[in-house]
Amino acid sequence: MKLRLTVLALAAALLLPAVFPGQGPRAQEPVQKQVFEAGSYRTRGGGTIANTRVGYQTAGRLNEARDNAILITHFFSGNSHAFGRLGGPQGPVGYWDAIIGPGRAIDTDRYFVISSDTLVNLNVPDPNTVTTGPATLDSATGRPYGLTFPVVSMRDFVEVQKRLLDHLGVRRLALVAGGSMGALQAMEWAAAYPEMVARVMPVIAHDIDPWNLAWLDVWEAPIRMDPNWRQGDYYAQGRQPPLAGLAEALRIVTLQSRDRQWARGLGMRPAEGNDPARNLLDRFAIEKWLDDAATARARTSDANSFLYLVRANQLFFNEYDSPEAAFRRSQARWLVVPTANDRVFPIEGVREMVETLRRVGRPVAVAEVAGPLGHLNGVANMGPLSDRIRAFLAE
Amino acid sequence: MKLRLTVLALAAALLLPAVFPGQGPRAQEPVQKQVFEAGSYRTRGGGTIANTRVGYQTAGRLNEARDNAILITHFFSGNSHAFGRLGGPQGPVGYWDAIIGPGRAIDTDRYFVISSDTLVNLNVPDPNTVTTGPATLDSATGRPYGLTFPVVSMRDFVEVQKRLLDHLGVRRLALVAGGSMGALQAMEWAAAYPEMVARVMPVIAHDIDPWNLAWLDVWEAPIRMDPNWRQGDYYAQGRQPPLAGLAEALRIVTLQSRDRQWARGLGMRPAEGNDPARNLLDRFAIEKWLDDAATARARTSDANSFLYLVRANQLFFNEYDSPEAAFRRSQARWLVVPTANDRVFPIEGVREMVETLRRVGRPVAVAEVAGPLGHLNGVANMGPLSDRIRAFLAE
Repeated sequence: MKLRLTVLALAAALLLPAVFPGQGPRAQEPVQKQVFEAGSYRTRGGGTIANTRVGYQTAGRLNEARDNAILITHFFSGNSHAFGRLGGPQGPVGYWDAIIGPGRAIDTDRYFVISSDTLVNLNVPDPNTVTTGPATLDSATGRPYGLTFPVVSMRDFVEVQKRLLDHLGVRRLALVAGGSMGALQAMEWAAAYPEMVARVMPVIAHDIDPWNLAWLDVWEAPIRMDPNWRQGDYYAQGRQPPLAGLAEALRIVTLQSRDRQWARGLGMRPAEGNDPARNLLDRFAIEKWLDDAATARARTSDANSFLYLVRANQLFFNEYDSPEAAFRRSQARWLVVPTANDRVFPIEGVREMVETLRRVGRPVAVAEVAGPLGHLNGVANMGPLSDRIRAFLAE
Repeated sequence: MKLRLTVLALAAALLLPAVFPGQGPRAQEPVQKQVFEAGSYRTRGGGTIANTRVGYQTAGRLNEARDNAILITHFFSGNSHAFGRLGGPQGPVGYWDAIIGPGRAIDTDRYFVISSDTLVNLNVPDPNTVTTGPATLDSATGRPYGLTFPVVSMRDFVEVQKRLLDHLGVRRLALVAGGSMGALQAMEWAAAYPEMVARVMPVIAHDIDPWNLAWLDVWEAPIRMDPNWRQGDYYAQGRQPPLAGLAEALRIVTLQSRDRQWARGLGMRPAEGNDPARNLLDRFAIEKWLDDAATARARTSDANSFLYLVRANQLFFNEYDSPEAAFRRSQARWLVVPTANDRVFPIEGVREMVETLRRVGRPVAVAEVAGPLGHLNGVANMGPLSDRIRAFLAE
């Protein structure tokens, strides 16, 4: 029950279609959340995480050549649940259910598909997320790390995933694909382990530029402003977590991940019983909607983890002289999937990235994802790209 | 000296060109700030403001027919200083200096040009801004209004300007022009007093839609979160104003009013002496730039006025059934000036507005303003549109 509520809250926050596409080519199969114990991990920045654990799920089977694996990397507020019915035949389906499953574009009858929770995952209070981050107990002190947790980068996410793939016996990836922050991980993979990655599909993202970096800081600022944040030291019993700041941070993300067309559905009308033309603190309906969605989402999220996630995004490609230098390392084929009216990663930035990829000689194709949601089209509306993805995997 | 510092802070926050175009067709003339006592004003929402005062400035002379007047309406964080050297021949020039002045596109040799401070103007601590809003002393109590000040709408801004124009003897406006929130006022003018407005030039704006309305709420949220805000009751001696919340609000506005190309100038590098790859609270250079610009700007701004300004923007066209109904009332010629990569009023929204204007039969032309600044191109880069504006005024 708790699971279902959590997933419904997530779906509400993402405005996923109310009806999930449960009848694909074949019914979706159940998946089970598993835990990978990665052991002691030394971060790229030189910190140490004593006991590193992340959750993951798989579907399909690894072939004898161990080269039919596909890695799905999740977005900022997501977790490993990209495909399959979680927990049983009646469980909720994953966010990319439309393109991953038996007989679907990313066919679990042919591929061994893996998706893992990242380090410093946002969904700490969600029982279906397993992560290691500032809310994790530090075995040295018996208390949560808080801000003593080392800074991690997008590359650190990849390194922990690499350990997971080694553990699973994967030798080569037919594809790494993800939306938004998932795309960032996919791009880091292509640069970090070029010999291992045959194809990359970054969806609704380009390389993080200074503009994105500054917006990420705008996202997190309300958390730092919340008096309950206490420099990250809010886990002790009797203390309140900075839910107001976290909700405000999530409100900004929620709005920027959508678009004008979506907003029109809520219109310019006042919230019920409110009169904003006369009372300064009264609310409009769209404000109330964002308040409610973000407040619900804050309850299944952790504020410090939000800050660490922001920093990991800001440290995208931080080990390379330039995005071009990173792209030059890649040996993969690229299918880049932008969406028009993306307010997080503007489509002209994606076009610039494609030009850079072409300039350094990477094989790259572009397929747009459409819809009224803006950035979130890349999470909620991928179904129509199925044939294009199938063709990409056959190249 | 205080004046110069204030104006420099404003210029820094706006990233105006370091060299002002002081040598136009003819040297810019000094302007003096004046005060208009509008008396008791009943707001459109039914509230009362006992003593309404706003600052204004003029250049040129009203002709005998009293129909050569042009009204310039200011942007969100601006004031009446759109043109002229304020205070004397060495004073700073206005933000639209490139297009307003003797011999310029909006020629003060031919036109009587007026610009006024709005109600609830943001720049309360600036000695060159005269406004009436929540920081004004309520004569009934002898204390600042705070949140007892009535909510005002964009239409209220227009009504106070109407009184000023009546006071100055203006019968007809050859043009109402403004950028961003100034464009909103210009559009309200065209709908409220259609017989009075011959031409409208809304720059870098479309009618406020639900998407804008929600972003305005994101802008103001940090003020409401600041414990020093105290529900608007922070004016009493010994109390601190909510400067942190106000600075964060201004930081969001500052970033959204710019663009990716501008951000590249600051790059992905850490702020001096900072190591964000290792220390979670360390800063990047672009974050530090935004922090500094916004903190400086907060000192010349008032937090409650920010909230009232946001609401006035949200109440744009609130007396009409739809933007179309408002546009239908207009009898003016329109020159609509958008800019590509505008992150506040996306250019596709401006295109939709132009379609609506055409559908209802308004004569409308479009001229794009260019530059690397995004939204702010419409404030800082108007010079190249001079000939187009001249032609528009000759139509």
